[in-house]
Amino acid sequence: MMYNLLKGKRGIIFGALDENSIAWKTAERVHEEGGVFVLSNAPAAMRLGNISDLALKTGAQVIPADATSVTDLEKLIEQAMDILGGKIDFVLHSIGMSVNVRKGNHYTNQNYDFTQKGWNVSAVSFHKVLQVLYKKDAMNEWGSIVAFSYMAAQRVFPDYNDMADNKAFLESVARSFGYFFGRDKKVRVNTISQSPTATKAGQGVKGFNGFIAFADKMAPLGNASALDCANYTVSMFSDLTKMVTLQNLLHDGGFSNVGVSQEVMEMFE
Amino acid sequence: MMYNLLKGKRGIIFGALDENSIAWKTAERVHEEGGVFVLSNAPAAMRLGNISDLALKTGAQVIPADATSVTDLEKLIEQAMDILGGKIDFVLHSIGMSVNVRKGNHYTNQNYDFTQKGWNVSAVSFHKVLQVLYKKDAMNEWGSIVAFSYMAAQRVFPDYNDMADNKAFLESVARSFGYFFGRDKKVRVNTISQSPTATKAGQGVKGFNGFIAFADKMAPLGNASALDCANYTVSMFSDLTKMVTLQNLLHDGGFSNVGVSQEVMEMFE
Amino acid sequence: MMYNLLKGKRGIIFGALDENSIAWKTAERVHEEGGVFVLSNAPAAMRLGNISDLALKTGAQVIPADATSVTDLEKLIEQAMDILGGKIDFVLHSIGMSVNVRKGNHYTNQNYDFTQKGWNVSAVSFHKVLQVLYKKDAMNEWGSIVAFSYMAAQRVFPDYNDMADNKAFLESVARSFGYFFGRDKKVRVNTISQSPTATKAGQGVKGFNGFIAFADKMAPLGNASALDCANYTVSMFSDLTKMVTLQNLLHDGGFSNVGVSQEVMEMFE
Amino acid sequence: MMYNLLKGKRGIIFGALDENSIAWKTAERVHEEGGVFVLSNAPAAMRLGNISDLALKTGAQVIPADATSVTDLEKLIEQAMDILGGKIDFVLHSIGMSVNVRKGNHYTNQNYDFTQKGWNVSAVSFHKVLQVLYKKDAMNEWGSIVAFSYMAAQRVFPDYNDMADNKAFLESVARSFGYFFGRDKKVRVNTISQSPTATKAGQGVKGFNGFIAFADKMAPLGNASALDCANYTVSMFSDLTKMVTLQNLLHDGGFSNVGVSQEVMEMFE
Repeated sequence: MMYNLLKGKRGIIFGALDENSIAWKTAERVHEEGGVFVLSNAPAAMRLGNISDLALKTGAQVIPADATSVTDLEKLIEQAMDILGGKIDFVLHSIGMSVNVRKGNHYTNQNYDFTQKGWNVSAVSFHKVLQVLYKKDAMNEWGSIVAFSYMAAQRVFPDYNDMADNKAFLESVARSFGYFFGRDKKVRVNTISQSPTATKAGQGVKGFNGFIAFADKMAPLGNASALDCANYTVSMFSDLTKMVTLQNLLHDGGFSNVGVSQEVMEMFE
Repeated sequence: MMYNLLKGKRGIIFGALDENSIAWKTAERVHEEGGVFVLSNAPAAMRLGNISDLALKTGAQVIPADATSVTDLEKLIEQAMDILGGKIDFVLHSIGMSVNVRKGNHYTNQNYDFTQKGWNVSAVSFHKVLQVLYKKDAMNEWGSIVAFSYMAAQRVFPDYNDMADNKAFLESVARSFGYFFGRDKKVRVNTISQSPTATKAGQGVKGFNGFIAFADKMAPLGNASALDCANYTVSMFSDLTKMVTLQNLLHDGGFSNVGVSQEVMEMFE
Repeated sequence: MMYNLLKGKRGIIFGALDENSIAWKTAERVHEEGGVFVLSNAPAAMRLGNISDLALKTGAQVIPADATSVTDLEKLIEQAMDILGGKIDFVLHSIGMSVNVRKGNHYTNQNYDFTQKGWNVSAVSFHKVLQVLYKKDAMNEWGSIVAFSYMAAQRVFPDYNDMADNKAFLESVARSFGYFFGRDKKVRVNTISQSPTATKAGQGVKGFNGFIAFADKMAPLGNASALDCANYTVSMFSDLTKMVTLQNLLHDGGFSNVGVSQEVMEMFE
Repeated sequence: MMYNLLKGKRGIIFGALDENSIAWKTAERVHEEGGVFVLSNAPAAMRLGNISDLALKTGAQVIPADATSVTDLEKLIEQAMDILGGKIDFVLHSIGMSVNVRKGNHYTNQNYDFTQKGWNVSAVSFHKVLQVLYKKDAMNEWGSIVAFSYMAAQRVFPDYNDMADNKAFLESVARSFGYFFGRDKKVRVNTISQSPTATKAGQGVKGFNGFIAFADKMAPLGNASALDCANYTVSMFSDLTKMVTLQNLLHDGGFSNVGVSQEVMEMFE
């Protein structure tokens, strides 16, 4: 697919790690649609992946930044505008990490230093990105900002742990900041709540395979892939969706509105 | 449990069929809590059940009424006020029936005369009850009106068929009419969305046993029983909940906010 | 904007009345994006508008059909496939009418024959469209079906009357049928919940101007226009949104997630 | 009202500051209903209020505790069980504070140290209370835990600032921990989302009077008072609501489900 949907648009994409990342696929699709952008990732995360391959492929520059550091974000956003030659039209925030999950702490046995660190990386970083963009007046009117979320913000997925609470906070930030960004700058802010996806981040979650299989059997269209999500994100960056804001957009093959599928129910008969 | 929570309150209970009905259990509990009421059911439904046993036990009179007939409802409400000696404090609407389900028509193969009949019985009847109560000014201030609903109004349960759409309409009526009933008469209107329950109505639904088992394994507290629901309804009729209105109240052991339980997920690993 | 987003796609658009209709704008935008379609409207509605102008402009044929008549819909869908040369990729349902509103009956004083007629036209017609498409296997895989709804399905807008309940039913049909259409045919079904819009239908609602002004002051981006909605609908017909289904999509400048705006609150200080 | 609804039940009530606090009213009502409890507050907060009056009136002991300190909470819960003579049946968490609000920082101009502090006090404290109760196995089966929230967790109220995000996190904690507490201990966990209330905490919010007036004109029953909320909380602590869990319960006179009231709309005509 190539429609030139994002021709002339400039952006920043956070969180592309390797070719399984949704942010990676999104960068590829944005490139195909004519958008230009800088890629950013945490210095530590960059060592794990191969973001330079993506940069090469999409003609993007990579600017390392710790998204929990306001100073780093300020530099990044200044540099991005310099490199791209103007204000920003789209931003993707695909950043999340739970230290409790990594360390194997159960949700009922959290280490609160870890809780705070995960919250800071996964949720407050989004507020910081928004606040720096807002204060620097770095977004063009009718720009679009998207963060990736997950339905654990609304319903319990036992192994998702404290990331559920972080995603609830993140979605609230999208609404709260989205109000001011919309009113003052005509910029929209939304979250996309994506099917469970076999990315590096997802694979860290215990029981993830079982959950992917369950979700796939519940959703009438099955689980949405990373590429599907990239396409959807492109539509949210395009001018076709200018009046969608403050929303949490379910992108999940229908999973969220199914109480039980025939197939799953039959296992219990 | 006996707290005299409903002492001095008068009501109408629709839809008690047999001792498995939630309305039946509610009538028993309301009686224990000191409320007085009349029982009403469709003439046809009354022949199937044994409502006179319930009437005897609770000191209630039975007034047959077709809840789709405004004339029947007008008579019923007049008689109820006569018998009980004053205006009404609480009303329970527990009425629902799908002809498409009874005749075995799949949701994608509806007979629209049946669709209309089920909608009229299951959903419009609630508007009619409300409209007659409102026009006759038959409710006391701070009275409470409850209709039973089911979560199929929000999410798909494949075998629930057109009752899903009827429940969505019913819940909307609770909001729409609840606005005017609250503003004009200080009366609250809510729906209770109950766990799947092994009542006569429930048993008609294909695959119901599988679904009850699934819901029980998903909900952290398991499925709520008919007696639990009766207790909850008592709380909604009491003066403890005077400012709750226009709500759809989930009474389901937590089912509605669980994406997947550990137990269910493990079946997919 | 022209991206060829719908090149090669065939569709049916119900409910374009005059150049203020959202369906009219959608037809124009679909045409610009390369989609071909037939237009359909009720014979009575066609006399009021000037749909032949639209047909001329977009190269579409007009097929009159009463969307409450299964027979009419069967003929329409057969003819559409003949005319367009294959199965259908997109369908827009933009049909709604309340006789109670037209006759000035308050929500608490409904004439139930009118209630039934409005429900049949506004909500059951969508089930009928879906059922005929499903039974005839008339949709291509990954096709997209959209119906227009309004937020009165979730929250009270006093003058919206029984259309609120009809829209709740309509949205439930989208979920219920969407499950089977997704699972069996890989077709997605969604509703778009649009800002109040100054169309012919909207203008019939008492107090509509006050409400449009209120919504505009609440929404951070202001009210979405008919053209905005047409653009959004195009995105929902395109291949960018293949995994979005069973959703009610808020397209409202952020209105739905604002509790109160600064501007509105200041009027109460 | 006195029904002995909580006879024989033991609890902990956090956050009663002065006679305007909802927690204060709840303590009074719980006492009237036969429940016994300890009161707890932060040492700093205790100096501002007159909690010893409440303690005297309700026969309760006061145990100061910083709810962000796991050590303090451990001591408190041990002491509470000692004083009350057994495990706990009910807990009320009424704790919230935003340093950004206090310091007058706009939502778009946050000091992130303040953000973290407010989050820790307002939201993480609830997880800590739950985790200590869970690990110590301090709750009786069918016990009930309630935290007070506010609808800013779902919709924007511009002056509510970062408390909106904290409440979203808090509500997520209720769901996430409620799952494990329900499954493992048969304990229910819910949040109550209360009308804006003229408490000490509320009064700190800029524009609060305008907002209270707006909400009162929107809600069909008007705003719920602190006493109404106390009554509702009593119902949630009682055995009548044993199967309600993981819910956010709107207690707001219907505000949440009103799009616009007649009265408000007329101001815009």
